[in-house]
Amino acid sequence: MIHLVLVGLKVPENIGFIARVAKNFGVKSIVLYNCNLTEVSFHTAAHAKDLLENARIVNDLSFLSSMNLVVGTTGVEGGDYRFLRKPIVRPEKLRRFLKGEVAILFGREDFGLSREEIEMCHLLVKIPTSEEYPIMNVSHAVAVILYVLSKNKFRIEKKEEFATSMEIEVAVRNLKELLELIDFPKHRLQRTLVVFRRVLGRAKIRKDEMMTIHGIFNKTTSFIRKSLEEKKEKI
Amino acid sequence: MIHLVLVGLKVPENIGFIARVAKNFGVKSIVLYNCNLTEVSFHTAAHAKDLLENARIVNDLSFLSSMNLVVGTTGVEGGDYRFLRKPIVRPEKLRRFLKGEVAILFGREDFGLSREEIEMCHLLVKIPTSEEYPIMNVSHAVAVILYVLSKNKFRIEKKEEFATSMEIEVAVRNLKELLELIDFPKHRLQRTLVVFRRVLGRAKIRKDEMMTIHGIFNKTTSFIRKSLEEKKEKI
Repeated sequence: MIHLVLVGLKVPENIGFIARVAKNFGVKSIVLYNCNLTEVSFHTAAHAKDLLENARIVNDLSFLSSMNLVVGTTGVEGGDYRFLRKPIVRPEKLRRFLKGEVAILFGREDFGLSREEIEMCHLLVKIPTSEEYPIMNVSHAVAVILYVLSKNKFRIEKKEEFATSMEIEVAVRNLKELLELIDFPKHRLQRTLVVFRRVLGRAKIRKDEMMTIHGIFNKTTSFIRKSLEEKKEKI
Repeated sequence: MIHLVLVGLKVPENIGFIARVAKNFGVKSIVLYNCNLTEVSFHTAAHAKDLLENARIVNDLSFLSSMNLVVGTTGVEGGDYRFLRKPIVRPEKLRRFLKGEVAILFGREDFGLSREEIEMCHLLVKIPTSEEYPIMNVSHAVAVILYVLSKNKFRIEKKEEFATSMEIEVAVRNLKELLELIDFPKHRLQRTLVVFRRVLGRAKIRKDEMMTIHGIFNKTTSFIRKSLEEKKEKI
């Protein structure tokens, strides 16, 4: 189970944003240590007010001793406690450690976690960012880390049914039929069919989309056939 | 090149947060369409004010025609335009499409992108979230998507030098020497050494950390040897 431990956050908005992002990614436990929780926090929490109501407020970090893993987060790599910040891993590397009770500490908006707090951590995480502006807002850092940790936990894509190679070939044959019907230049025919096959292949086209494509060809071809026949009848 | 296209954002804070997150991940182009850009936006942008100053403000979305790919983002899968939202992919799947000029559209805080805007998109992206509270704040959604797209672009870990298996064995031998010195029960010796080897192996211990471990053994062993010799001398 993941516990988000917010350390000394001064901006009430951030606390609420973090609660919202926690609920977005199914994290239920928030611990507040020296944080400026106000009505504003409940506003930015939107539909995650319950997480703030149930947040555990602590006066020291001694509860960390019951955790299986204590993770610190940092926006900088160097600074005064350079040696303390080694090794720093990227969020993905955290995933293999997610066993038992895991506390993830997020520090103050201005100077992050203190030396003593960093010393308590088994592992330090940093989100790789641009050197031009490496420091993220704390709530956005929480979003990225929880996204990475929740990977494969939530699904979006319902099982998509992709068109098979055979179905793609039906479309290629349909195109060939159409092109022959409209007297498409023979020397360009083969190349055109190959391009069409490859575009459909790369598009990872779904079965229902393929039906739409088939529909285009069927309607076009039969329209042309019909008008050709009418023309013939007239003659 | 990625262009963040903000569509109808009403909350000035969000526009600034998005600029900050854009700069965190090296994205330089922001396009504002019907957005409520105010002084507050410049405040939440922090050190990314330049991105807002250089943002392109447009009166319609016709510039999208010059893009190579237009990506929509959505927080919901169903809704009124269900068929329009198919297929929805997760952010990772976007990575293979990042060629040329790519516009990523983020919609209004309350109802996202309109039907017409969704129709313009080649691809729809959704961040997999908890069913309990799927809707993210728009700036946090930007953070997650840009993080995914920037992967491998920024580095954090300097080349870490990990201890080799041989160096781990030196530590195991050091422990064996120590245990023999202190008359550790022989029948538990082998098991203890195996546990120690495995713990070090799993910890992915670095060379400099290993030196610290070696230091512990050397100091301990020589202290014990010395005191044993002094005892012998006394006798």
